[in-house]
Amino acid sequence: MSSMRTHYCGLTTEALLGQTVSLCGWVHRRRDHGGVIFIDLRDREGLVQIVCNPEQAEVFKAAESVRNEFCLRVTGVVKDRLAGTVNNNLKSGKIEVICSALEVLNASVAVPFQLDDDNLSETTRLTHRVLDLRRPQMQNNLRLRYKVTMEVRKYLDELGFIDIETPMLTKSTPEGARDYLVPSRVNAGNFFALPQSPQLFKQLLMVANFDRYYQITKCFRDEDLRADRQPEFTQIDCETSFLNEQEIRDLFEDMIRKTFKNTMDVDLPNPFPVMDFAEAMGSYGSDKPDMRVKLQFTELTDVVKNVEFKIFNAAANLPNGRVVGLLVPKGGSMPRSEIDAYTQFVAIYGAKGLAYIKVNEKAKGREGLQSPIVKTIDDATLAKILELTGAQDGDLIFFGADKAKVVNDAIGALRVKIGHSEFGKANGLFDDVWSPLWVIDFPMFEYDEESDRWTATHHPFTAPKDGHEDWLETNPGACIAKAYDMVLNGWELGGGSIRIHREDVQSKVFRALKIDADEARLKFGFLLDALQYGAPPHGGLAFGLDRIVTLMTKSDSIRDVIAFPKTQRAQDLLTHAPSEVDEKQLKELHIRLRAAEPKVAG
Amino acid sequence: MSSMRTHYCGLTTEALLGQTVSLCGWVHRRRDHGGVIFIDLRDREGLVQIVCNPEQAEVFKAAESVRNEFCLRVTGVVKDRLAGTVNNNLKSGKIEVICSALEVLNASVAVPFQLDDDNLSETTRLTHRVLDLRRPQMQNNLRLRYKVTMEVRKYLDELGFIDIETPMLTKSTPEGARDYLVPSRVNAGNFFALPQSPQLFKQLLMVANFDRYYQITKCFRDEDLRADRQPEFTQIDCETSFLNEQEIRDLFEDMIRKTFKNTMDVDLPNPFPVMDFAEAMGSYGSDKPDMRVKLQFTELTDVVKNVEFKIFNAAANLPNGRVVGLLVPKGGSMPRSEIDAYTQFVAIYGAKGLAYIKVNEKAKGREGLQSPIVKTIDDATLAKILELTGAQDGDLIFFGADKAKVVNDAIGALRVKIGHSEFGKANGLFDDVWSPLWVIDFPMFEYDEESDRWTATHHPFTAPKDGHEDWLETNPGACIAKAYDMVLNGWELGGGSIRIHREDVQSKVFRALKIDADEARLKFGFLLDALQYGAPPHGGLAFGLDRIVTLMTKSDSIRDVIAFPKTQRAQDLLTHAPSEVDEKQLKELHIRLRAAEPKVAG
Repeated sequence: MSSMRTHYCGLTTEALLGQTVSLCGWVHRRRDHGGVIFIDLRDREGLVQIVCNPEQAEVFKAAESVRNEFCLRVTGVVKDRLAGTVNNNLKSGKIEVICSALEVLNASVAVPFQLDDDNLSETTRLTHRVLDLRRPQMQNNLRLRYKVTMEVRKYLDELGFIDIETPMLTKSTPEGARDYLVPSRVNAGNFFALPQSPQLFKQLLMVANFDRYYQITKCFRDEDLRADRQPEFTQIDCETSFLNEQEIRDLFEDMIRKTFKNTMDVDLPNPFPVMDFAEAMGSYGSDKPDMRVKLQFTELTDVVKNVEFKIFNAAANLPNGRVVGLLVPKGGSMPRSEIDAYTQFVAIYGAKGLAYIKVNEKAKGREGLQSPIVKTIDDATLAKILELTGAQDGDLIFFGADKAKVVNDAIGALRVKIGHSEFGKANGLFDDVWSPLWVIDFPMFEYDEESDRWTATHHPFTAPKDGHEDWLETNPGACIAKAYDMVLNGWELGGGSIRIHREDVQSKVFRALKIDADEARLKFGFLLDALQYGAPPHGGLAFGLDRIVTLMTKSDSIRDVIAFPKTQRAQDLLTHAPSEVDEKQLKELHIRLRAAEPKVAG
Repeated sequence: MSSMRTHYCGLTTEALLGQTVSLCGWVHRRRDHGGVIFIDLRDREGLVQIVCNPEQAEVFKAAESVRNEFCLRVTGVVKDRLAGTVNNNLKSGKIEVICSALEVLNASVAVPFQLDDDNLSETTRLTHRVLDLRRPQMQNNLRLRYKVTMEVRKYLDELGFIDIETPMLTKSTPEGARDYLVPSRVNAGNFFALPQSPQLFKQLLMVANFDRYYQITKCFRDEDLRADRQPEFTQIDCETSFLNEQEIRDLFEDMIRKTFKNTMDVDLPNPFPVMDFAEAMGSYGSDKPDMRVKLQFTELTDVVKNVEFKIFNAAANLPNGRVVGLLVPKGGSMPRSEIDAYTQFVAIYGAKGLAYIKVNEKAKGREGLQSPIVKTIDDATLAKILELTGAQDGDLIFFGADKAKVVNDAIGALRVKIGHSEFGKANGLFDDVWSPLWVIDFPMFEYDEESDRWTATHHPFTAPKDGHEDWLETNPGACIAKAYDMVLNGWELGGGSIRIHREDVQSKVFRALKIDADEARLKFGFLLDALQYGAPPHGGLAFGLDRIVTLMTKSDSIRDVIAFPKTQRAQDLLTHAPSEVDEKQLKELHIRLRAAEPKVAG
């Protein structure tokens, strides 16, 4: 491999028996046993056992001085291990290297933790990220991440997609998430924004006749962070001209399937199931249902409109109200404590309680039901509920009754929680498979009560279904978009749409969103202009690379698949970013800190 | 290919004779000829001729309505062109498509310029970038750029390099160039910086045992822009452990050679010439000499120390002075006007004049020389100058005499200017080939007179030659670095070094740079810490992708190989970035504009 080494430690195997090898790596462990020093030497490919015999006086002396994480260069002959000392967990486990020369390339101070300690706090890990990254799990995560990107690149290359870089210093358009801003020195008082996505640039590239574009690129959103969010995240961003929705979905479904096969040897279903948005919300309360969980909503809104039980009838009669049941087969055995825990759990999502019915013995009618709520529900409705949910003796039904959003969030989360629980796994409510699906036919718009206006469900550049463009201004709530999300195990892996390619339709959508002509021109004039020069029909999608790899590696957090992530307080604990800067720098950028402004007395 | 089209326009050839094809693309040109409408339809692969006959009434009517840059879908049968109408400049030039259906996918307003107009101002091109990008030259530039990146990725992949993303939101370390800053919302008063390069992160990745890293990534420098600079630019950034300088150079020389071969079918020399820094500056006045130019400096500093001619002896006796000759073979024929133009040219670089001698007839001694300066130079020195430069009858010698920096810059630039001139090309002073070389053995430090201290020639993480670490503090000027630049045709394609992997050496370098221990800890504590945990010997380099592709495509500016570049005023003329932002945004970021601060009267 080089003048310093001939092989990787972890790839030194019995194929090299009798040969002299030179290896470089780190001391993973040193053991003195029977007057001999054994060193497990580690490089990125794994471990190999180095044997330092006292007969080799110089080597032995050097070996005595080494400590964990010293960086060594070792030369020696590859020999069979003694019978009984073979380690089948290692590729190099059948051999050892009898050391004839040992050079300390660099010493190490004592490490603050053992690399194989699995109980480190995240703060410790991020503070000492360089050591944390030496751990095999982190090495594997980042190598898998790389493999995924190379598979994607090869797949897209074969189909004629071209990686084109779009700017990082772009224009701020305060729609959707908060922008990260970059003050301009040359243009005083002006700011760049870091891109939330290359959306408009990739559309411009389609108008510019590049036909098929992709980019694996950083995007930025200054949001309050959650477990699966980072200030900067990586998108596999794709766009193509002259394909319809089905063709685009097929193309990228195939990409994800091949990527899972070639990097993990996992066979995803072919084809992926397809579900429309209405069904996803109706049956699962989510536009990214975890289909491994074998539980579904039963729609009860109409059924309970007239019951005496106030919580049900109030919710059922709200304009945006909803009442659902969630049948849990064999849930009758669930202890009260578990039900109480679920009641607390749904409260996180805004649910004010968690009604339930245990179905002890259907044949007994009302007497066979165990529940705090049945006394205010009439017999006919109870019978209807049992019929619609399909409840059998021994089952349990949970209920959600509130505004639809609260019901969907709370009972949707409860559904997943039960599915993933010990109970769920023991009772066949969870299928431990890779379960992808497409969710399609999203509404164009969602009504935002706070701002009393329609907002774009995906983004304002999404095309409506054919014919629906006529309703954009007259009945926005009825417009369905040519939008699609790819979902895997309850995570949105990616999403996209056919875009609007006609200027008149784009202007209509802006009007539907109450963006007037002046504002539209100011913010999106360059797009409207571009659409007028024979923009082609086009569409695409973007995948979240961090999420894909987090799922693949079954990591707890996307921070485990990013080399140098930020904390949930958006800080880099390793380099201590962000940090204070010189007044001179701020002056050059024509800004000052608010805290530094002179206070007015009084 | 899809339900909309069966082939690319530009790839529709005689292999498809008799077949019905569907094509999508833009109207490049429409001609009415003999009652028939001919449309040149363009997609990213090129043009094809569509024939619309009046017998097809509906098609003909539609064809009459189309204008340049309309986006069409066309179906028809592929036929031979009539003899005499074959166009051998097109892949599709032997055929035409007899149109049986024509759909206008999108109309176009009149375009502001013809796509084949080669005399557009850059402002026009950047303002209408979407149309500009439709031009074949821009299509080719960006496709070649993509091919270069894929070749690089494949090459590095085979050698075990792994693409690992480093952060875009990093810590400001105001060394070298100016940082772009990003105010933090969550951490009031603090700022991220956009990376000037991933230098320290890639070194951390080596310490973290990733062994071989690369990344094709954006870097940012807030500098005043020149023709070959952009606020954001793209680096092919590489780093490896356990290779020495020669091995790293060989590896990346091979990468560049294969990339030129596989994307352009150009054979670069094997191996590249290697020149040390001292020779480059001595003979060419530049650390990136354009070796296509067959002119060299002759060192005359010592020769002219005692001449009467004041400009020479003053420069020769300066501590940082230098006097050189530049022999121009056959330059004696150069008219006075050309010499005057060169005198003005060198003034740009600070030269106060441009002395010269025309060698008319050596045999006549002083009488055979034509020059304003010879009367104040003695015979012996004149003879020595002629001898050292090797001047022959009919030649001309230019002289530079000033501080070394001025001489190197001015006469170095003059050397290139003459080489590339009509005169140079006519007289064999310019060799039109690809001429790469390595420049090595850079000094560790340069003395900065302004700040009266040593600064790092490359960066403070560059390793000194073995043994030179002892002189870091005692004789910094004598320290040579393990640094190397790859130069092609006078452009620095890339550069790198072996890095310091020992904490004690790194601390010494900081001290040599007058960065005291507290400051070093504050700015680079994370690096010093990492070096203590058995950091491996490592090194690498970074290539400027924009420059490589600019050279390959012989573009005038790197803006021609970037899809959406900024102007020299750091503005995006298409989207109008940077721009003003809402007061609300600034408030959230805890900053205010300086211009907006209350003015104090008086």
